Amino acid sequence: MQSSELQIKPPPKKAVVLVSGGLDSATVLAMAVSQGFACHAVSFDYGQRHKAELVAAAALVQAMGAVEHKVIKFDLAGIGGSALTDASLAVPEHPTQGIPVTYVPARNTVFLALALGWAEVLQAHDIFIGINAVDYSGYPDCRPEYIKAFQVLANLATRAGVEGQPTMIRTPLLSLSKAQIIQEGTRLGVDYSRTVSCYTADDQGRACGVCDACRLRMAGFQGAGLPDPTHYRPI
Amino acid sequence: MQSSELQIKPPPKKAVVLVSGGLDSATVLAMAVSQGFACHAVSFDYGQRHKAELVAAAALVQAMGAVEHKVIKFDLAGIGGSALTDASLAVPEHPTQGIPVTYVPARNTVFLALALGWAEVLQAHDIFIGINAVDYSGYPDCRPEYIKAFQVLANLATRAGVEGQPTMIRTPLLSLSKAQIIQEGTRLGVDYSRTVSCYTADDQGRACGVCDACRLRMAGFQGAGLPDPTHYRPI
Repeated sequence: MQSSELQIKPPPKKAVVLVSGGLDSATVLAMAVSQGFACHAVSFDYGQRHKAELVAAAALVQAMGAVEHKVIKFDLAGIGGSALTDASLAVPEHPTQGIPVTYVPARNTVFLALALGWAEVLQAHDIFIGINAVDYSGYPDCRPEYIKAFQVLANLATRAGVEGQPTMIRTPLLSLSKAQIIQEGTRLGVDYSRTVSCYTADDQGRACGVCDACRLRMAGFQGAGLPDPTHYRPI
Repeated sequence: MQSSELQIKPPPKKAVVLVSGGLDSATVLAMAVSQGFACHAVSFDYGQRHKAELVAAAALVQAMGAVEHKVIKFDLAGIGGSALTDASLAVPEHPTQGIPVTYVPARNTVFLALALGWAEVLQAHDIFIGINAVDYSGYPDCRPEYIKAFQVLANLATRAGVEGQPTMIRTPLLSLSKAQIIQEGTRLGVDYSRTVSCYTADDQGRACGVCDACRLRMAGFQGAGLPDPTHYRPI
């Protein structure tokens, strides 16, 4: 027996990965898995219209080898104020100026806070989130300065931070274009036909093709020079 | 008719006030009301053991003239890691060193994030929270530096912040002792017999008298030179 056979591999580092079921978070999960993290995926059932993304998230997490998948339920619809949670506000079918009506107030702050709490319990020191500041919808909580502020907060908010073990907020997509994200995910074997990006996806996860999320996604496949595997519903 | 009678009073400024049902948040609500804010109270049903505090919160909010009361439900118990949400972890009956087991991972970050989202929808620019860094349990997310970091984050995270309307995180109790808090609340007419602080309060809101929260509260009434109106359960 050679000594190398006696070496015990250290357990993989744990990471919490926010998985919405969309294209970006599927790519981030593939990146975290490829970097050797034991991935604990978390999704949020927050009263969003497009529940099909939660179904997609469950399938993606299983296919991509995450260690576990937690769905945390809470009621952002009770707060209102967004076309994504309030059926009385229409999802725009054309580009709009400024911060769009699909912006969900403080959504990423709530998501990251819950992920931070879970990371602390798991003793994970890495949180992956598919925030992107290039081909995005203009939401304030997708900007680099926002992530930097959350990073500061995270290490003041937690026991781990106080004890000198920082929790890193990892945003590998932050400065990539949608086309670059798709190219990287394709290289890592992501099956984008399983992902749901559309704000008004139907029960089968079929996309409208006209909302902001659909437009960005379509342009991404075009820019990447790859066929768009999205399931669109008949108009 | 004098011209002064024709003056139309501007509507009161809105504030979101986090109300747990405990002594501190009841005092903060009284302070916000006394400052003339239209108070939108929010409580969190997060899987805590001591549900009696939510019953107390509802009664306090009504008695103290808040405009409305929202209870947001979400599952921190699913994350685990705290004696306040996990029945398998005992609540200590004696003081402990360091951050105690009653610390709920990232709790104030989640609470403030949800309050921030609601404030944005209401177009309220003030959030009141009863954080106290003097007579407190040593939680990392009760320190002044934590609140400062959340203040920075809040104005990067939101539409209001981007549009130049900062949301102020108001912590009027931050540097008060428990005795000073009780004196101020008593001056403002808070009925502390309605508040529940105990980590293991029973269904009737009766306190154990031995947990960290009970000990701080008892010492507060003693320090304030006021009778302690807490309902203790028979031992």
